[in-house]
Amino acid sequence: MGVPCRAQLALRRTATGPDRERHTSMSTQDRLTHIDDAGAARMVDVSGKDVTARTARASGRVLVSPRVIELLRGEGVPKGDALATARIAGIMGAKRTPDLIPLCHPLAVSGVKLDLSVADDAVEIIATVKTTDRTGVEMEALTAVSVAALTVIDMVKAVDKGAVITDVRVEEKTGGKSGDWSRA
Amino acid sequence: MGVPCRAQLALRRTATGPDRERHTSMSTQDRLTHIDDAGAARMVDVSGKDVTARTARASGRVLVSPRVIELLRGEGVPKGDALATARIAGIMGAKRTPDLIPLCHPLAVSGVKLDLSVADDAVEIIATVKTTDRTGVEMEALTAVSVAALTVIDMVKAVDKGAVITDVRVEEKTGGKSGDWSRA
Amino acid sequence: MGVPCRAQLALRRTATGPDRERHTSMSTQDRLTHIDDAGAARMVDVSGKDVTARTARASGRVLVSPRVIELLRGEGVPKGDALATARIAGIMGAKRTPDLIPLCHPLAVSGVKLDLSVADDAVEIIATVKTTDRTGVEMEALTAVSVAALTVIDMVKAVDKGAVITDVRVEEKTGGKSGDWSRA
Amino acid sequence: MGVPCRAQLALRRTATGPDRERHTSMSTQDRLTHIDDAGAARMVDVSGKDVTARTARASGRVLVSPRVIELLRGEGVPKGDALATARIAGIMGAKRTPDLIPLCHPLAVSGVKLDLSVADDAVEIIATVKTTDRTGVEMEALTAVSVAALTVIDMVKAVDKGAVITDVRVEEKTGGKSGDWSRA
Amino acid sequence: MGVPCRAQLALRRTATGPDRERHTSMSTQDRLTHIDDAGAARMVDVSGKDVTARTARASGRVLVSPRVIELLRGEGVPKGDALATARIAGIMGAKRTPDLIPLCHPLAVSGVKLDLSVADDAVEIIATVKTTDRTGVEMEALTAVSVAALTVIDMVKAVDKGAVITDVRVEEKTGGKSGDWSRA
Amino acid sequence: MGVPCRAQLALRRTATGPDRERHTSMSTQDRLTHIDDAGAARMVDVSGKDVTARTARASGRVLVSPRVIELLRGEGVPKGDALATARIAGIMGAKRTPDLIPLCHPLAVSGVKLDLSVADDAVEIIATVKTTDRTGVEMEALTAVSVAALTVIDMVKAVDKGAVITDVRVEEKTGGKSGDWSRA
Repeated sequence: MGVPCRAQLALRRTATGPDRERHTSMSTQDRLTHIDDAGAARMVDVSGKDVTARTARASGRVLVSPRVIELLRGEGVPKGDALATARIAGIMGAKRTPDLIPLCHPLAVSGVKLDLSVADDAVEIIATVKTTDRTGVEMEALTAVSVAALTVIDMVKAVDKGAVITDVRVEEKTGGKSGDWSRA
Repeated sequence: MGVPCRAQLALRRTATGPDRERHTSMSTQDRLTHIDDAGAARMVDVSGKDVTARTARASGRVLVSPRVIELLRGEGVPKGDALATARIAGIMGAKRTPDLIPLCHPLAVSGVKLDLSVADDAVEIIATVKTTDRTGVEMEALTAVSVAALTVIDMVKAVDKGAVITDVRVEEKTGGKSGDWSRA
Repeated sequence: MGVPCRAQLALRRTATGPDRERHTSMSTQDRLTHIDDAGAARMVDVSGKDVTARTARASGRVLVSPRVIELLRGEGVPKGDALATARIAGIMGAKRTPDLIPLCHPLAVSGVKLDLSVADDAVEIIATVKTTDRTGVEMEALTAVSVAALTVIDMVKAVDKGAVITDVRVEEKTGGKSGDWSRA
Repeated sequence: MGVPCRAQLALRRTATGPDRERHTSMSTQDRLTHIDDAGAARMVDVSGKDVTARTARASGRVLVSPRVIELLRGEGVPKGDALATARIAGIMGAKRTPDLIPLCHPLAVSGVKLDLSVADDAVEIIATVKTTDRTGVEMEALTAVSVAALTVIDMVKAVDKGAVITDVRVEEKTGGKSGDWSRA
Repeated sequence: MGVPCRAQLALRRTATGPDRERHTSMSTQDRLTHIDDAGAARMVDVSGKDVTARTARASGRVLVSPRVIELLRGEGVPKGDALATARIAGIMGAKRTPDLIPLCHPLAVSGVKLDLSVADDAVEIIATVKTTDRTGVEMEALTAVSVAALTVIDMVKAVDKGAVITDVRVEEKTGGKSGDWSRA
Repeated sequence: MGVPCRAQLALRRTATGPDRERHTSMSTQDRLTHIDDAGAARMVDVSGKDVTARTARASGRVLVSPRVIELLRGEGVPKGDALATARIAGIMGAKRTPDLIPLCHPLAVSGVKLDLSVADDAVEIIATVKTTDRTGVEMEALTAVSVAALTVIDMVKAVDKGAVITDVRVEEKTGGKSGDWSRA
């Protein structure tokens, strides 16, 4: 995600409509699985699902001011642990997913990687999570991105009160009964 | 936030540049406070700050497919606990902020309110957090929004794999030495 | 705990005595397994046990005042999220079991269902928990009931300070070396 | 929950009915404070309440088989850490209250005491909790009792699958705007 | 840390040097596995590793004053729950390892044993942890020892402010691809 | 723990003995405050203590092999996030103290600073913690050091299985009724 980030966003926003309709029509399930027939929330029973290797990759962006970009690039001051702190927070956040998301299953996270890069107007975050378990790790990847993004905001908020987290979404998943999926 | 949400977004994106420059120039601090002179992360000492009433309001959106909107509005099926689950997750998430964000101070959250509403193409989330303590609750409000948003995604992901969290940001804060602030 | 309490207990014990003796005589173990020969608490080694499907169902009741029953049934006011909050707390509580109960093993909870219903003088709670792991989920089911019950009390305590949690117990379990068991 | 259970309940209600009516009529609030006018759960704002010394005492019982009573009294085997484990779990449980009960405020617990005693047919638990904060500690005391009771069940369940937690309730509270209260 | 500390260290290093060189030369890996080529922390992917039985034993010591030794031995006062509290804290600490150590994998701890004994000038702690999973439990054993040691200090600090935790280390591990290892 | 270990201890005790006797004789309390007269663990009531500014500084060391020292100094490979990970883990660990140490009070940590430096044969860790509350933060400082030290071991254990945590101790405290204290 290079320089033309804002332009790219505009393109994506234009494009997202059709794309979104497409993936929806591919969906085979047509109900909120976490709600039973009486409307009650439940943790879906996955004991019949296979233990298989699964991965998920999610991304997100934190829009920050030009001054923050300078500081994160270490211009004039040590950038120090800023990105490392967000990276570690994201990794730890992945492990806390079932504590935070009420209907998520606890699962054996077997690998987490967080990539943070400083673009011209944003910190870009990509999380890749792996497991060998009965459910996917999309929520773990999204939680990792969100917690890393919140940590970036915490670190820059004295300089930029207006930072915004945006475009947090699953990019790709592999494994499991529903198979592979990637954002068009 | 009514019907013209996408249009509104376009307007906002156009507008954000100047706005963002403005609030940046108002900023009096010009370094990453959570990083010391050697670049090491630290939890900033707030023991000299006053215990005062403080509030923060943050918002965010989860972009979902039209079918999800129908389901969340209860068309044809019980919508049941879907929004309540996200609301409660958000409230509990606010309390977990210092566990998740490495350099956040633990503080006495004295009130949390989560508003979720189903717009035409998104679930809109607003979190309001209050405290009487030595630091602000912006991070608590943002964490509440993020955890509620992640919970919405978890509940709809079987129907809409492509849901996106966007526009997570502080709208307003009051109290503390730096005084009141609101997004222009 | 005064005199009426003991009398009341005597009545109940008369009713449940035979039942309880029966299940005790079926027990093949005659020591506190969590305490070693020197009296020290330990987490029992289950690494030699098989990974099998296991379920447990537990129940409990929160005795509340007639006015609370009216409010929970939505008479005159919106009952709103009251039961949903307890349901979600119970589900999340099941996942926290190894954090709370010192000698419980962490395990892969693969499904949790909480049923709450408003009877004439009590909120009745049933939790069903499933796993495919090396130990049973009786404690997870009991913890889910207890946390849901505590949450009910928290929600009604401004109206009814005297609410009482009672009859929290395992109703049934399946799977594992000790086999199926149900309360007579 | 079968027929004997209801009969048993009827007996108990006869005994406790008058007592419960009395405390209900003393109640001045007549709605579920944790639910707003639209039915949404919220953490009530307590920032306007005074920081004052508050205490709460709660109790509960775990009904166990005669063989468990013998073991807990150390007849023939070391009783060892059994009660200590439950006592410590209860103390730690008090501190986890805001993590478990969705709408509870985090607060500065300033003292916790757990008393466990082995009666003829039950383990009796009393928890006393103190704070100097903006809300009461009734939920902390009830949570301490519940977690200690669950821990007792965990320790005896290999010998007595049918153990029952009962009579978990607030006995007394002091401090705060609503003043002192004790079970008649 | 002053001069005597270094001198003291020199003495100790003389004693342990040969031993340490030996195990280092046996090491086949020659990089920090938790850091990728760009220097970023990551949770190493273990999804390709086998699920096998693994154990680890770690030890440590808390140096305390003679008066503390007397108190822990119950001379003149009940020693009561002192060691039990540390033992239980250590067991619970083992389960919290992936919450505390950023790059540790959550894993299925299947047994934990803590031995505490009061020597002439120290409390000696040994933790033995078992699992059947994809990674070893050395960190769980070390965390159990550390949390138990911290708990000992907490209990004696009113009598002995100068207590010191020392010699916390892995003694032995079995299982996994790297095979068995024990301190020479 | 073999013979060399005791000999080694004797050497160290010779050096530190006088120092330790001195601070012990200054102690005014002569019992384990966390244990009541019947021997039961309890969280001591601090509600009568003053809210005052308090600090604590603790230190510790992780003895590692020469090769680890090279890697941590970045000789030949990027040292990257290694020390930052331990620093952040230590800061987060300070906040988890009351979750880990059974009888510790939850308190308002108002600042945490972790210093890690790579000496010739060890990673040296110093934690400084501040609060304005009713109890001291010695345990928070010690927990921060311990968790940072455990994280160092986790990061180097593939290269050096024999790393040892040693000399974890309070160096200094200020504030509170018992006043200032520092290791001689």
